[in-house]
Amino acid sequence: MGYEISEKLASMKPSAIREIFKSLTDPRIIAFAAGNPAAESFPAQSLASISAEIFATDAAKALQYGITEGYPGLLSVIKDRLCKKFGCSEDGNSFMIVSGGQQGIELTCKVMCNEGDVVLCENPSFIGALNAFRSNGARTVGVELDADGINIESLEKAVRDNPRAKMLYLIPTFHNPAGICTSLEKRRKIYEIAKKNSLVILEDNPYGELRFAGEEIPTIKSMDTDGIVVYCGSLSKVLSAGMRVGFVCAPDRIFSKMVVAKQVEDVHTNQFFQMLCAEYIKRFDFDAHIEQIRALYRKKCGIMLEALDRYMPDGVAYTRPQGGLFIWCTLPEKVSLDEFVKKSLDRFVAVVPGTAFNCDESAPSSSFRITYSTPTEQQIVDGVRIISEVAGSLM
Amino acid sequence: MGYEISEKLASMKPSAIREIFKSLTDPRIIAFAAGNPAAESFPAQSLASISAEIFATDAAKALQYGITEGYPGLLSVIKDRLCKKFGCSEDGNSFMIVSGGQQGIELTCKVMCNEGDVVLCENPSFIGALNAFRSNGARTVGVELDADGINIESLEKAVRDNPRAKMLYLIPTFHNPAGICTSLEKRRKIYEIAKKNSLVILEDNPYGELRFAGEEIPTIKSMDTDGIVVYCGSLSKVLSAGMRVGFVCAPDRIFSKMVVAKQVEDVHTNQFFQMLCAEYIKRFDFDAHIEQIRALYRKKCGIMLEALDRYMPDGVAYTRPQGGLFIWCTLPEKVSLDEFVKKSLDRFVAVVPGTAFNCDESAPSSSFRITYSTPTEQQIVDGVRIISEVAGSLM
Repeated sequence: MGYEISEKLASMKPSAIREIFKSLTDPRIIAFAAGNPAAESFPAQSLASISAEIFATDAAKALQYGITEGYPGLLSVIKDRLCKKFGCSEDGNSFMIVSGGQQGIELTCKVMCNEGDVVLCENPSFIGALNAFRSNGARTVGVELDADGINIESLEKAVRDNPRAKMLYLIPTFHNPAGICTSLEKRRKIYEIAKKNSLVILEDNPYGELRFAGEEIPTIKSMDTDGIVVYCGSLSKVLSAGMRVGFVCAPDRIFSKMVVAKQVEDVHTNQFFQMLCAEYIKRFDFDAHIEQIRALYRKKCGIMLEALDRYMPDGVAYTRPQGGLFIWCTLPEKVSLDEFVKKSLDRFVAVVPGTAFNCDESAPSSSFRITYSTPTEQQIVDGVRIISEVAGSLM
Repeated sequence: MGYEISEKLASMKPSAIREIFKSLTDPRIIAFAAGNPAAESFPAQSLASISAEIFATDAAKALQYGITEGYPGLLSVIKDRLCKKFGCSEDGNSFMIVSGGQQGIELTCKVMCNEGDVVLCENPSFIGALNAFRSNGARTVGVELDADGINIESLEKAVRDNPRAKMLYLIPTFHNPAGICTSLEKRRKIYEIAKKNSLVILEDNPYGELRFAGEEIPTIKSMDTDGIVVYCGSLSKVLSAGMRVGFVCAPDRIFSKMVVAKQVEDVHTNQFFQMLCAEYIKRFDFDAHIEQIRALYRKKCGIMLEALDRYMPDGVAYTRPQGGLFIWCTLPEKVSLDEFVKKSLDRFVAVVPGTAFNCDESAPSSSFRITYSTPTEQQIVDGVRIISEVAGSLM
């Protein structure tokens, strides 16, 4: 055993969230922690009937190797949707099916970053993306996040301070974990800063279909006249998370290298499920299905906010999301986050401590993330009551 | 567009084989080129019936996020099989489900190699692995391959010449593309050399279930008393290639980092198909199914060898495989390989030129790879007759 682990992986630890997820098998736990979509958002019956049909008529194709870019039938409906609803364009861009939005993020970093290059990120940010950057030897630098998106002065300073900054990673719509949306004005400013400084923007939009209040805001990709934005999305929150089907729209020059990089990671995404998704979107009313999911989350988020308004002691702040899955809560500074998380878990409510989302892993946090997606309505009320009591007891 | 692609990806091109595969849609083509398993090797009807059952009874779990290491039900049957039939051991090792054997290869390199580290490979070798190493910034160095495995003197020299050698990548059983098996004696010698020089061995065994002649040879992993061998396998050749389900058995220290690396690539492998595979292996006679596949390839390989014996002009050499999917043919040096490949394709037979498998991409080759897996028996005879005529016309 005289060997050494690679430098980029040697210091990495499993994501706290995935580890929490593994411990959620205890049925007494109220799961405010996981980022799982509600089971009701998966159209299981419709998928079952199409699945039977694929096995009956097209099994040899569905079980055989496919092409790296993706099953053409799925690519075509995804392309159509991204262009019509999310401001993507075929002009200068190409589209690929990936094994979940996560793979799109990881591939973008692998294609863009040398070891030691810097990825600027909102702070806090999605831990899966931060770790994907680190696993490729890139360094993550966090930039302050305001209620309307990244702080522009801090972003400009971070660009100045980091000559090796290569990429800017953003979740502009229903941010994970912070639950906020970046304003249109800020999106425009961010795009100009990236353009001026030769940064590639990685726009991660896994929750873009889940708006249940307020007005749609154009994607940053929709402003991309210069070929500098890679856009990642996913069917995880609207069809099935476990199938691992996501997609990417990227400038051609970056795209061609992403195809090569995907080829050597998993050859292609599960062919059967790509065919299943394509047929589902073609045959069923996908927009009506998404509207049902939005209604579900609108209701559950409303219940959680109502419970927070009722039970949570003054001094604890929380976001009021217009979509997505998460509410971001902030305790008064004097409260120990560790103690809060531990005492909540002792009373069978699991939340994710904000430290898990810090770009600087050793930085402190007073915040925690909760979700309304998988708990029942009763669990939402009970869980919020419990964590409110725990917070009150520590203040 | 002031950005630069990362150094490791900048010079990489799509795999020649995947590109050939994309062009195989012409129904007139006899496909000796692709590495696809025969469609008959996928038990579609059985998979269909289990699939319907999973949708009916367990859809919420099958469509939801799973854990990175893999669906426990599948992990347990895979672990069992690897320990009973392939010399793996739970002692000091752990097991993970990956998105095809390809992902196991790529993760091992990411975890082990810094940019500039060297992976020693048999020359020729599997292009997907070579490119996986390159995509992580590792350098591939080819070592001469004899009929009974890697040349030991050349391996020792390569170790001496490359102080940054970190890993040794091998396909000891039914080598792709060379079709040979490494002898037991050489496996032992290779293990000792790796141990002495602190090299990690990556043993890739995607064809290990496909022996149709000769005696089983113990895996190198079965000799691994020192925790230096990562073993990768796959269900692609025995259940479905398109589903992208493979597995890894790795020493614990390497394994824990592979889990982190997989987490940030695709979170986990398609959950539904993991459940499907687990149920198939539990309920059906998997060994009997594999025996049918072996019989199929035994017959088709026999037909191809018989046709080669009959039609191929003297001076063209070819292997006589005891398993796997490939025959490796070598033309006399005076014949232009490019011309042979092009003229064969003009007559609608696609083969893969040996240059595609060279560790040094610019090195010449006189060899080409053909497969008997997907063509019909008639196509095998017709195709061999055609490439024999082409070879004869160039000699």
